[in-house]
Amino acid sequence: MPYVNIKITREGATSEQKARLIAGVTSLLQTELGKNPATTVVVIEEVDTDNWGIGGESVTVRRQKGQ
Amino acid sequence: MPYVNIKITREGATSEQKARLIAGVTSLLQTELGKNPATTVVVIEEVDTDNWGIGGESVTVRRQKGQ
Amino acid sequence: MPYVNIKITREGATSEQKARLIAGVTSLLQTELGKNPATTVVVIEEVDTDNWGIGGESVTVRRQKGQ
Amino acid sequence: MPYVNIKITREGATSEQKARLIAGVTSLLQTELGKNPATTVVVIEEVDTDNWGIGGESVTVRRQKGQ
Amino acid sequence: MPYVNIKITREGATSEQKARLIAGVTSLLQTELGKNPATTVVVIEEVDTDNWGIGGESVTVRRQKGQ
Amino acid sequence: MPYVNIKITREGATSEQKARLIAGVTSLLQTELGKNPATTVVVIEEVDTDNWGIGGESVTVRRQKGQ
Repeated sequence: MPYVNIKITREGATSEQKARLIAGVTSLLQTELGKNPATTVVVIEEVDTDNWGIGGESVTVRRQKGQ
Repeated sequence: MPYVNIKITREGATSEQKARLIAGVTSLLQTELGKNPATTVVVIEEVDTDNWGIGGESVTVRRQKGQ
Repeated sequence: MPYVNIKITREGATSEQKARLIAGVTSLLQTELGKNPATTVVVIEEVDTDNWGIGGESVTVRRQKGQ
Repeated sequence: MPYVNIKITREGATSEQKARLIAGVTSLLQTELGKNPATTVVVIEEVDTDNWGIGGESVTVRRQKGQ
Repeated sequence: MPYVNIKITREGATSEQKARLIAGVTSLLQTELGKNPATTVVVIEEVDTDNWGIGGESVTVRRQKGQ
Repeated sequence: MPYVNIKITREGATSEQKARLIAGVTSLLQTELGKNPATTVVVIEEVDTDNWGIGGESVTVRRQKGQ
């Protein structure tokens, strides 16, 4: 019955990559905590780099600086 | 003063449906918990079916399988 | 398959009140959007009044002022 | 190491405004709580006015009424 | 730079189990999406069974019914 | 009308510190984005160090290692 929310920057993750992420997280919760995969919900949110900040700067700015 | 976040798959919910959902949740919080509707906030997030997983699979894949 | 997160201040909501809230929100999503109740998840989070702010003040302070 | 999620209605916030918001929140957490800015994450989410409710109505409807 | 929020019912997960979950999710994001583990944040929230609903009922009630 | 959720590790933030954080974030949203402080909601969540991971390790473990 777990609920997992994964936020990543929107930078071209494919449907296949997201499908593997969903499968992997669901499997991990079963292996480590015995959670039932049938009711494990995973929601992936992709966030524009202008809207994601770390170290006081947006990822857009960090990428421009080569970080 | 409650804050309610509703996540659903993006599959064509109309403005009217979302307006009724906002009204209904706000009313329910007043009826059941005595919360003031004036400061009840409801945020609906619509998520692509590729980005929503249940049972270890994305909803996109489940829909293709007829689930 | 919706996921609903309800945040309220921690001020003595009972198990019965929370059960009715869970039932009511689940029913509303079925009625308004046709969502399957079997996979509708509702998570209620109760937050200390020191940790909830509105209008730039904590709810603790607002309650002391009679607001 | 804080994580801050800011949800606002989607009404034209610019990259520059969002950059200043990220910088300001990160700085505030350092000043008030001594948090390390290098690992402070800020995620801004912009929500359609149809999907944001307050007082039981969507912001779209409230704006039409001049509220 | 991903941010992962995992909500589970509060039913005795140990520190060791949670540590393995943190390690596993971080590793998965590196393997599947190439994300830097150094800035991957994982937050686990444990929720009382009274406050978690599925199928319109709280987990407390479902457990009493043997579900 | 913004909603701000701030997650920090539970390490003794005082009511006064949290009150200043609420005031500061609310003011920042008014200054930078013109948001009405009366309807700005700030929710602070304090998370056990066992439940917060960064770099694939819990904060509990990192603190033991002197990080």
